Amino acid sequence: MAESILINHIKSYLILSEKELSEIARFFDYHSFNKKDTLLHAEKRCDKLFFVIKGCLQLYFIDGLSNPKTSQFAIENWWLTDFLAFQNQQPSNFYIETVENSEVLSISFSKYQELLDTFPKMEKYFRNIYETAYGAALMRIKYMNSLSKEDMFLMFRDNFPEFVQRVPQYLLASFLGLTPEYLSEIKRK
Amino acid sequence: MAESILINHIKSYLILSEKELSEIARFFDYHSFNKKDTLLHAEKRCDKLFFVIKGCLQLYFIDGLSNPKTSQFAIENWWLTDFLAFQNQQPSNFYIETVENSEVLSISFSKYQELLDTFPKMEKYFRNIYETAYGAALMRIKYMNSLSKEDMFLMFRDNFPEFVQRVPQYLLASFLGLTPEYLSEIKRK
Repeated sequence: MAESILINHIKSYLILSEKELSEIARFFDYHSFNKKDTLLHAEKRCDKLFFVIKGCLQLYFIDGLSNPKTSQFAIENWWLTDFLAFQNQQPSNFYIETVENSEVLSISFSKYQELLDTFPKMEKYFRNIYETAYGAALMRIKYMNSLSKEDMFLMFRDNFPEFVQRVPQYLLASFLGLTPEYLSEIKRK
Repeated sequence: MAESILINHIKSYLILSEKELSEIARFFDYHSFNKKDTLLHAEKRCDKLFFVIKGCLQLYFIDGLSNPKTSQFAIENWWLTDFLAFQNQQPSNFYIETVENSEVLSISFSKYQELLDTFPKMEKYFRNIYETAYGAALMRIKYMNSLSKEDMFLMFRDNFPEFVQRVPQYLLASFLGLTPEYLSEIKRK
């Protein structure tokens, strides 16, 4: 059962009874998406938070030259949405699209509030998730401000080797702020 | 009393009794720092989380050319540390220094754990803080990947006008990834 992936992830942070865990699982909707399906549209109200069971999602935006640019990937056990827009129930600044065929759980904003009210222990789970995610974002901003594009790729390859194999090159290039041609050149070296 | 600033901030997220709030305040240490005092050293264990009562802090690192680069500012009602290093009790990847004379509350990692264990409602407070901070970091990464340095400054000036007045120009330039000379040139236009 797909929800068991989320349940196991929650259990790595919290002690909850099997009854509580199965009640928590019922707050989520299960979806099976094809590659390149759109889960969230920019400029539409951001009402969903996603958890990846299997596959890979990307958070991207369209820049001033009409090019899609990837801001974040999410693989198994990661949460993804436009968090500011979700929290404020505003139009999204990003699109979310599947990179591969993917299995995903989603929760609406009202269900998310209900989940946190019904199971306040889940605050601890999400506090941990976001504390780590924010810390990692500060590190990423540090790298963006200090590493050359080539070193950025090498650091990424060393830290996330599986990822470099898995994600299409044009998306990896977009995420790292490189042209696909330049990324190919770095990889050849 | 300095702690009342934090108490009021917590009250904007949680309903707590006055007794609970004053007990929570006792988990924190108060400090008054001069401008340019160092609160956290890179490569030393990151054991403190800071809350700004008054003044301004910067999170920075030293790049490969020995230049300090600002990754984050924190003003009144903001939390700051190297969150990944704090969570894992590892050496910090950043320095934290005061930009102005500042009043700050600090909490050690063990006290932070004790606070969250004693007052689980505080999980909700920090979940909200980090959810917003992570969402804002994703937006910042979006801007870094889409705006020219000049547009980055203009966006920053329009959204945080008080900040542009307050923070020394060389630090603002460092934060925006500009040279101080280029920032002066943009401002003259």
